[in-house]
Amino acid sequence: MSKLVIVGTVAFDAIETPFGKTDKILGGAATYIGLAASQFNTDGAIVSVVGGDFPKEDIDMLKDKGMSVAGLEIVEDGKTFFWSGRYHNDMNSRDTLATELNVLESFSPVVPESYKDAEVVMLGNLHPMVQMSVVEQMEDPKLIVLDTMNFWMDVAMDDLKKVIEKVDVITINDEEARQLSGEYSLVNAAKEIFTMGPKYVVIKKGEHGALIFHKDNMFFAPALPLAEVFDPTGAGDTFAGGFTGYLAKTGDYSFENMKRAIIHGSCLASFCVEKFGTERMQNLNRDEVNKRLHQFKSLTQYDIELT
Amino acid sequence: MSKLVIVGTVAFDAIETPFGKTDKILGGAATYIGLAASQFNTDGAIVSVVGGDFPKEDIDMLKDKGMSVAGLEIVEDGKTFFWSGRYHNDMNSRDTLATELNVLESFSPVVPESYKDAEVVMLGNLHPMVQMSVVEQMEDPKLIVLDTMNFWMDVAMDDLKKVIEKVDVITINDEEARQLSGEYSLVNAAKEIFTMGPKYVVIKKGEHGALIFHKDNMFFAPALPLAEVFDPTGAGDTFAGGFTGYLAKTGDYSFENMKRAIIHGSCLASFCVEKFGTERMQNLNRDEVNKRLHQFKSLTQYDIELT
Repeated sequence: MSKLVIVGTVAFDAIETPFGKTDKILGGAATYIGLAASQFNTDGAIVSVVGGDFPKEDIDMLKDKGMSVAGLEIVEDGKTFFWSGRYHNDMNSRDTLATELNVLESFSPVVPESYKDAEVVMLGNLHPMVQMSVVEQMEDPKLIVLDTMNFWMDVAMDDLKKVIEKVDVITINDEEARQLSGEYSLVNAAKEIFTMGPKYVVIKKGEHGALIFHKDNMFFAPALPLAEVFDPTGAGDTFAGGFTGYLAKTGDYSFENMKRAIIHGSCLASFCVEKFGTERMQNLNRDEVNKRLHQFKSLTQYDIELT
Repeated sequence: MSKLVIVGTVAFDAIETPFGKTDKILGGAATYIGLAASQFNTDGAIVSVVGGDFPKEDIDMLKDKGMSVAGLEIVEDGKTFFWSGRYHNDMNSRDTLATELNVLESFSPVVPESYKDAEVVMLGNLHPMVQMSVVEQMEDPKLIVLDTMNFWMDVAMDDLKKVIEKVDVITINDEEARQLSGEYSLVNAAKEIFTMGPKYVVIKKGEHGALIFHKDNMFFAPALPLAEVFDPTGAGDTFAGGFTGYLAKTGDYSFENMKRAIIHGSCLASFCVEKFGTERMQNLNRDEVNKRLHQFKSLTQYDIELT
């Protein structure tokens, strides 16, 4: 079992989907990543910042899940980061209704002393310079995984490229892979991104699954087709949390093990979307996960005699 | 080894893609289906119609591939069906530039006597009443597979529903599944389509792979991520030809075997798109196919210990 450092937002979200809407509820990339990683009883630490308005119960919940919150700064006279969005009918696209950075504006992450020797680092979606600051505080990480999005490509591409150079794995969606690489084909996009630094490129395609590329190898994990997707918020972060949580638990960073990690990530993400916000991930037990892993297996495993 | 009857168009296509354009070249659903099925040395017959302008060499090529053309009517003073289309940059959508029905307008399919006892019937995309006429000529088919498209849902839904009632398997794309069922979720769409007749629903998602549903079971086959897609024309028909060709060859119509059939169909479709028209499928050898089946296997197969 290796230690896992998670940097990312801990936030309030207000979400509208065709199924309903929420007031401010618990959200944030680091929250979803941490909840997913906790499924593996990972020794993980969340590095983030919240305001004085952030509920103590939510911090306690993260601690109960086994996450260290020593790196979670509380700015008593500040307000927690707030995001609000509305999903379209197809659930594949959304409009951002509000983004209030609040305490995030002057966030300077501090990795707790006892986690500077962590082997696995998960850089959740944040300004690339904040991500870089975490990388620089680590002693000798074995695996750094970066999540980012098109917004940073638009406004901070140079900074983003500097952090991309430092990481082993990048996880982005298909459109972002195309934007970052200038290549339409995802195969070519991954090859181009290899030249920027990462040895592994994970491309998230939402309901169409996820691909991981490494040298000339590729592996594909489907998303589980669901009768109803209730709220897609946090699915990508949950996927990343499952991926890094499994890798930290096993301490095996081979491509073969990354295949398993991707399946675990996809499996957990399939739960995340079943309820609003973090509700499903907070109340998820091992039996449910095992049952779904069987479903994933029967979804893609077959037996053909090859010559 | 079972016999396979294929009904569908044998046509001229003129195709424009971002990579170039063709004059009138060999095309048509039955052509692609037959070429794919011939990879399994299937005893297949193409039931279709062409005009006097159709090259004898193309008919000979189909015969050389082992396809019976006893059911291929030649209307000497008629012109062959012609379709012309232009693909958009993303290759996922296209505009139809011309559709000349010609001899197809009065086509009345005749299944050769020696193929009326075929076990497997592949109804390629055509007017549903033409598809129905083939169903009615068959003696005791074990498996009828229907391909269709949104056009027939728009102009002949009642006829289409009558033929859907008669078939075991329907293959349509995701948007068509939604249109036919009125359900957005593909899981719910498949359930709704079960009530219309088919026991198996295959949903083609193009570059995102294909799903097959049967009762409460589902199986997913990815499309092989390719560096370049040259021309998507015929990929869906090639998929259907690989699917039915493999099932006819093995004579095993179980869900387990359909999983293998879907993988074979996806594998062959991945070749089809590599060159314009039928060129790649005409010049495909067993070694290439075997090598690609290995690629498919490594793309999705993994080893997770389940509890």
